[in-house]
Amino acid sequence: MTGIDDLPVRDELRGKSPYGAPQLDVPVRLNTNENPYPLPEALVDRIAERVREAARNLNRYPDRDAVDLRTQLARYLTDTSGYEVGLANVWAANGSNEVLQQLLQTFGGPGRTAIGFEPSYSMHGLIARGTGTGWISGPRREDFTIDLAAAEQAIAEHRPDVVFVTTPNNPTGTAVPAETVLALYEAAQAARPSMVVVDEAYIEFSHGDSLLPLLEGRPHLVVSRTMSKAFGAAGLRLGYLAAHPAVVDAVQLVRLPYHLSAVTQATALAALEHTDTLLKYVEQLKSERDRLVAELLAAGYEVTASDANFVQFGRFADAHDVWRRILDRGVLVRDNGVPGWLRVTAGTPEENDAFLDAVRDLKKELDA
Amino acid sequence: MTGIDDLPVRDELRGKSPYGAPQLDVPVRLNTNENPYPLPEALVDRIAERVREAARNLNRYPDRDAVDLRTQLARYLTDTSGYEVGLANVWAANGSNEVLQQLLQTFGGPGRTAIGFEPSYSMHGLIARGTGTGWISGPRREDFTIDLAAAEQAIAEHRPDVVFVTTPNNPTGTAVPAETVLALYEAAQAARPSMVVVDEAYIEFSHGDSLLPLLEGRPHLVVSRTMSKAFGAAGLRLGYLAAHPAVVDAVQLVRLPYHLSAVTQATALAALEHTDTLLKYVEQLKSERDRLVAELLAAGYEVTASDANFVQFGRFADAHDVWRRILDRGVLVRDNGVPGWLRVTAGTPEENDAFLDAVRDLKKELDA
Repeated sequence: MTGIDDLPVRDELRGKSPYGAPQLDVPVRLNTNENPYPLPEALVDRIAERVREAARNLNRYPDRDAVDLRTQLARYLTDTSGYEVGLANVWAANGSNEVLQQLLQTFGGPGRTAIGFEPSYSMHGLIARGTGTGWISGPRREDFTIDLAAAEQAIAEHRPDVVFVTTPNNPTGTAVPAETVLALYEAAQAARPSMVVVDEAYIEFSHGDSLLPLLEGRPHLVVSRTMSKAFGAAGLRLGYLAAHPAVVDAVQLVRLPYHLSAVTQATALAALEHTDTLLKYVEQLKSERDRLVAELLAAGYEVTASDANFVQFGRFADAHDVWRRILDRGVLVRDNGVPGWLRVTAGTPEENDAFLDAVRDLKKELDA
Repeated sequence: MTGIDDLPVRDELRGKSPYGAPQLDVPVRLNTNENPYPLPEALVDRIAERVREAARNLNRYPDRDAVDLRTQLARYLTDTSGYEVGLANVWAANGSNEVLQQLLQTFGGPGRTAIGFEPSYSMHGLIARGTGTGWISGPRREDFTIDLAAAEQAIAEHRPDVVFVTTPNNPTGTAVPAETVLALYEAAQAARPSMVVVDEAYIEFSHGDSLLPLLEGRPHLVVSRTMSKAFGAAGLRLGYLAAHPAVVDAVQLVRLPYHLSAVTQATALAALEHTDTLLKYVEQLKSERDRLVAELLAAGYEVTASDANFVQFGRFADAHDVWRRILDRGVLVRDNGVPGWLRVTAGTPEENDAFLDAVRDLKKELDA
């Protein structure tokens, strides 16, 4: 029987497995940082209505430049950050993964390198591999904050073409202060100059502010975002970036033409009409996230400070074994491969109660 | 003012422009091979209904493997070709462009090459560039058919990792006989072995049959398809491929996780429910295509034999000037950069009449 390795696949793909969390049928799924709140019914109606309109013209290619959508995304960023961005600053694609892929096709690629400070969002390295970009694993402290001196040294040594900074960081939840990002930007400019991509997928859940205002006067800085988390629309696959207009022009050299379907554009526009309602769910999730932190600490676990809609907890001699034992109690969390730690998504109060019951119960066994 | 060339973009992108036909506001647009028939109202209703269901769960990631959709696409291929394919043979992505990009990321990429027989679909070369794959421009005869001996020689000489065969070919409309594809496959296996990608984006409009049955016993063959044309769904961005299951496994090593949104999957599934109706429009377009060929010939133009929903016509000393003069008459056709030739999409009978009136009127000027 012919298998992958019998095909002329690229050498670096041999023996690899596709990325993705195990999809298990479990009562409480807190493993993929999804927003647990379904869209409100009024928004579901509005999506059906806007998609119906779009479907009437579906025989035509979609707006290749997604002008309406990018305009509304710019308005959302301006309204929530106080920093004014416009259509020319914003680009959108099928999930922030595609945004990041386009950035690496433009600024990375064969003969170039990208760095991230790990553990971090593992897709950064995987998308680098997929685009032929060399990947450099930069350091973090044991508490998962970025050691600026060590990071600057890594940038000076490797002179990467692209620097990823994820804030809040996934899977640790750690926010990166603006002054650290600024210092990394300066280090990256001194080394090459390089593009610095600030991945703010979880920023709406942060105690702090977006780093969007740092874009001022920094044409090599990019802020990437997603509607998957705060907008409760993981199923929509809508990621976007804000940057200098030249960056938006540049990624259009590699974007596949008409990459963003008319139904995606229509659905995202409907969701943006309901921003205020969706951001109220974000507030609920932030307080649930804080409750998870407090209760995990009270139950005797270690917790990494979190600015996201998830919490990293530990420490375990065998994290995968603990993952399995939580799963045995009907709750699916995530083993991201960080030794000693697991990650739990903030769900509904009921889901979080089920998780907390499971880990409290488990603690007795672990301490026994 | 900072522009693209002030950014650290890849060298090969410097001075380039984004791909895409000019989007002009013209009464009759016959330039992008769109299906001129809007989806029937019953299908529009069904799309709204299925997207409404999907939107209720939009806070969750979509089915990463798009199992329902791939199953229905396999059924469609089986029903229309008589060659049985199943879920394991089919993969889907955001437009056939993304399918082709995934194939090149898997089987092409840095240090590898791909060949196409040009003029052909120009995205093949552009996606090669975007994935770091070297591009080889293979030959065609002056009548735009593939000269098998010359093509075999090019394959033997360059030993490409990926061979593209577009049938019917875009922008010429030329079908490639099965025996030619078979011979190219053999040549490609002897040279490396390489993957052979048969791009059947326009196959539903062909006088001949799909090459799907050639998949039997040929694990290095891939047939790519799209719902943009025959399904009248250019706005949906749904491309797919059929191949050996190992190929489907292999592209999952490079696909972005959850690349296909829940709304895209829901909309495509709705359209597949209405296959019979949509294929009736295809029959209308085929007869309109044949009428365009006959009337262009009658009007004194040269025409390339067409198996697609468009017709290449000429020959002109200055094709771009003729393109402009047709545009002046309110009809937008496509200048694909093939010296001496232009391409017109088969539209509705009324649109085709407008085009034919324009080119008949123009002929007097050209002959004067």
